[in-house]
Amino acid sequence: MKKIISQATIDRLPLYFRMLRLAEEEGLQIISSDELGRRLDITPEQIRKDLATFGQFGRKGIGYDVHELKDKIGNILGLQNNWRLAIVGVGHLGGALANYVNFASLGFSVAALFDINKKIIGSEVNGIKVNAASQMKRIIAAKKIDIGVITVPVEEAQGVADQLVAAGVKGIWNFAPTKITVPPSVPLVNEDLSIGLSALSYHMSQE
Amino acid sequence: MKKIISQATIDRLPLYFRMLRLAEEEGLQIISSDELGRRLDITPEQIRKDLATFGQFGRKGIGYDVHELKDKIGNILGLQNNWRLAIVGVGHLGGALANYVNFASLGFSVAALFDINKKIIGSEVNGIKVNAASQMKRIIAAKKIDIGVITVPVEEAQGVADQLVAAGVKGIWNFAPTKITVPPSVPLVNEDLSIGLSALSYHMSQE
Repeated sequence: MKKIISQATIDRLPLYFRMLRLAEEEGLQIISSDELGRRLDITPEQIRKDLATFGQFGRKGIGYDVHELKDKIGNILGLQNNWRLAIVGVGHLGGALANYVNFASLGFSVAALFDINKKIIGSEVNGIKVNAASQMKRIIAAKKIDIGVITVPVEEAQGVADQLVAAGVKGIWNFAPTKITVPPSVPLVNEDLSIGLSALSYHMSQE
Repeated sequence: MKKIISQATIDRLPLYFRMLRLAEEEGLQIISSDELGRRLDITPEQIRKDLATFGQFGRKGIGYDVHELKDKIGNILGLQNNWRLAIVGVGHLGGALANYVNFASLGFSVAALFDINKKIIGSEVNGIKVNAASQMKRIIAAKKIDIGVITVPVEEAQGVADQLVAAGVKGIWNFAPTKITVPPSVPLVNEDLSIGLSALSYHMSQE
């Protein structure tokens, strides 16, 4: 039976994973929830509650085994799959994502870029060649792409999603500010950069 | 007395706001939680629960007043402030944010750009001139900037945060993947683009 983990907990897991990876690199073998909390600016109670969701790891009064906990969280998030990404739409946002350093630290890699603009097809971004969108099906299969990232204008988003699904991607990460429809077998995450900004506005208005 | 609203609810409010704005533009006066849910892919129960957090709006069997609900949510989020943003670091990500259309639909506007790279100082992105970072204090005061957006490399992030705070911004939105420290009077939201991607990985691993 699968446990249901809340979205808020899932959203904190990559922070835990990255911090534990750093701690491992520092040579730490054991870390307490107090120390994790101090480093992440999250209360130790919250951390213990999150980690208790998927089993007993910590030893009371001692702490968590850094390596074991990092691997466990990585496995829950599926990071051991080392998912390969294709970005469709190499404008400002697509270019920013192709250069975003944080993906590699979680095991993701950008393996293909696509665009319809002849001026940039054939150029390279962060060492990755921009391919014609018409080559999507062939290249996604050849490069074993798992995740399609949509950074095209709103009008093109559904069409690109359809092409990505037809090409066999296993998941879609959509940055176009519109609702797109994909088969239920293909998980979809919609990203909206203004949500964090709205949260900031909310907190500024509470002062 | 202020009500405490959960982060998950706060994160959904901009979606409600934007959908209600569209509905208003369509000329709709009343909208049901069923219709809101259908448009947003959120259950009507969730919507009714979220909206009940800050008072009674809906009329049973009729629906919500589109205009009234939109204004109320905008006020809770502080969007009526029409916050003005300055982006520090006009690389790929800063350039993407300067061009991001979704901000305007929530009342935010990008009013200033800063960089230390002489090659881009003086150029324009989306019609906004890139200024030298050394001019931050003067220009932030002159342009009445409310929010500082940090899109510089990790090593420079804390220094830029200090400059923004000294220049008088009221909030900071940080994209640099590092922990920065600001006075408690200045709300800070840290953005990590790989959190959504990790959530996608999690869902793909549950298949």
